[in-house]
Amino acid sequence: MSGEFDIIARYFAPLAKDTPLAFGLKDDAAMIAPPKGHHLVVTADAIVEGVHFLHDDPPTRIAQKLLRVNLSDLAAKGATPLGYLLTCAFPPDIDERWISSFAKGLKADQKHFGLGLLGGDTVSSPGPATFGVTMFGAAKGRAMLRRSGAKPGDLLCVTGTIGDGGLGLSELLKPHAGLTDTQRKFLIARYRLPQPRTRIGPLLHGIASAALDVSDGLVQDVGHLAKQSGVRAVIDLASVPLSPAGLVLEKADPDTRRAAIGAGDDYEIAFTIPPKLLKSLQAAAFKARIRVTVIGRVQKGAGVAIALPDGSEIVPERGGFDHFTR
Amino acid sequence: MSGEFDIIARYFAPLAKDTPLAFGLKDDAAMIAPPKGHHLVVTADAIVEGVHFLHDDPPTRIAQKLLRVNLSDLAAKGATPLGYLLTCAFPPDIDERWISSFAKGLKADQKHFGLGLLGGDTVSSPGPATFGVTMFGAAKGRAMLRRSGAKPGDLLCVTGTIGDGGLGLSELLKPHAGLTDTQRKFLIARYRLPQPRTRIGPLLHGIASAALDVSDGLVQDVGHLAKQSGVRAVIDLASVPLSPAGLVLEKADPDTRRAAIGAGDDYEIAFTIPPKLLKSLQAAAFKARIRVTVIGRVQKGAGVAIALPDGSEIVPERGGFDHFTR
Repeated sequence: MSGEFDIIARYFAPLAKDTPLAFGLKDDAAMIAPPKGHHLVVTADAIVEGVHFLHDDPPTRIAQKLLRVNLSDLAAKGATPLGYLLTCAFPPDIDERWISSFAKGLKADQKHFGLGLLGGDTVSSPGPATFGVTMFGAAKGRAMLRRSGAKPGDLLCVTGTIGDGGLGLSELLKPHAGLTDTQRKFLIARYRLPQPRTRIGPLLHGIASAALDVSDGLVQDVGHLAKQSGVRAVIDLASVPLSPAGLVLEKADPDTRRAAIGAGDDYEIAFTIPPKLLKSLQAAAFKARIRVTVIGRVQKGAGVAIALPDGSEIVPERGGFDHFTR
Repeated sequence: MSGEFDIIARYFAPLAKDTPLAFGLKDDAAMIAPPKGHHLVVTADAIVEGVHFLHDDPPTRIAQKLLRVNLSDLAAKGATPLGYLLTCAFPPDIDERWISSFAKGLKADQKHFGLGLLGGDTVSSPGPATFGVTMFGAAKGRAMLRRSGAKPGDLLCVTGTIGDGGLGLSELLKPHAGLTDTQRKFLIARYRLPQPRTRIGPLLHGIASAALDVSDGLVQDVGHLAKQSGVRAVIDLASVPLSPAGLVLEKADPDTRRAAIGAGDDYEIAFTIPPKLLKSLQAAAFKARIRVTVIGRVQKGAGVAIALPDGSEIVPERGGFDHFTR
């Protein structure tokens, strides 16, 4: 394989050509300045071969997923993406063809989401391939949406539909009966490639009292929001929005909905709003062309509860995904 | 081992307690704002077990080296450190005791260099341990020191002494004769733990026309500066500052000086200045209590040349370290 400098010049420098403060990746550092009246929001994620992606996954998709999990974090914080730094640890079995495809995936999503490469580091490793992204976004004023602002009386809301990522994974492992080909492809695409809600995130400023992205499973992530806000969150199970494919599967297996709220890889935004701002939220959702659903409420107390259609409540023992103890 | 959230709460959250915009590492992102009149400079480095550090290296030192290579980059760009994001990919054989020591190293250097943890990500990996740091600094105005500003007629300068890192490594592999115990320890310490020139870096604004940190070897790094500036750089071999230990070794082996300018791990700053600013530079060096030496000059042309005491010049074929092709 070519040397580190050649790899950077050939595959990564072209990704920085529209970000002048990246200096063509020819310097030791980059500069970044948010637009006037904005502050920088930063988030970081690392992914490892064999843990977050598989050896044979297409490099374009690995690249896109890497950017999108960070874009989802920014969106949930109300920030508009600006750019990112990328660190790559490449094992010996990754060749230039792999890197070229990986860079193509980055390029496609840079264009789609309007951000540029700012810098990074490329090193060799005995393996596995490990990537890290630090992503920058701009938030108006000092107003990053936090996990901690939910108040008793607020409504609990979510963008899009829940559980598709988990159903997509199970579809790959063992196909479900009764789905159309389109529905099957939809679920698998939802698992493979997050659709970060970047359009609505910045519009939630001044509306949402707390927000976070749903990546570890709705119940677990709403639990984080409740904990950081010092409140209790109740999810009305019947209100949780399922996709048409999810609704088909629920007909065959009534437990589908309960599985959906524990499954990961949704990359939707869960957030709370004061009830009087519901109209403003609906206007924002219309503007962003994204479905938004009220799925519950915030109360005094602690923890997260699931309200069933018969009026009873269950408190889940534990939902979601923890990288170390699963 | 405890779960990801416990590890973060126990070992990493205390490192963020003095950076309010890190929100106690309890959110999905952090905010960062440079002081008024400053812009943000960002740099990223990744290190991998078995490549950049060894399995049995003390975790405190790995942590400090990780921060210091980034601090050195910031210093060479004229930026004052503000904070950093950290991504950790931990293999199964890293236990909480290891992480606790690693966090102690981070804490010590945070205090020493005045910066705080802003956020990051912690994931498991089948190994090797891989760490990434994205570090933020503040530079006055829009004036990050660049690799590309050197002009014919400028003087080529360097901070500190050159070659100690490389001599420290060779001392570890095969002890040299003739060194005092203090000198031996000095060289090994220079190899093990970089001393980033954070005090003088920001003072070089308005003085240096180009700058970069010397990490891959003086010749190679000056070559980068020359290439990005579109000039030729000449290093006067006799002017290259060696440490007292280096001078002892040079007496025993006259090739020591030539080896020194090709060796890595110096973490000094190489920079160029217009000759009329030499007095300003000396004042800055005095203020920062750091030795600065004029080691050559900038000419029209391309590449880097070594001027020998007899007046002849040699053009090195290739010096320094490239992660892929070494």
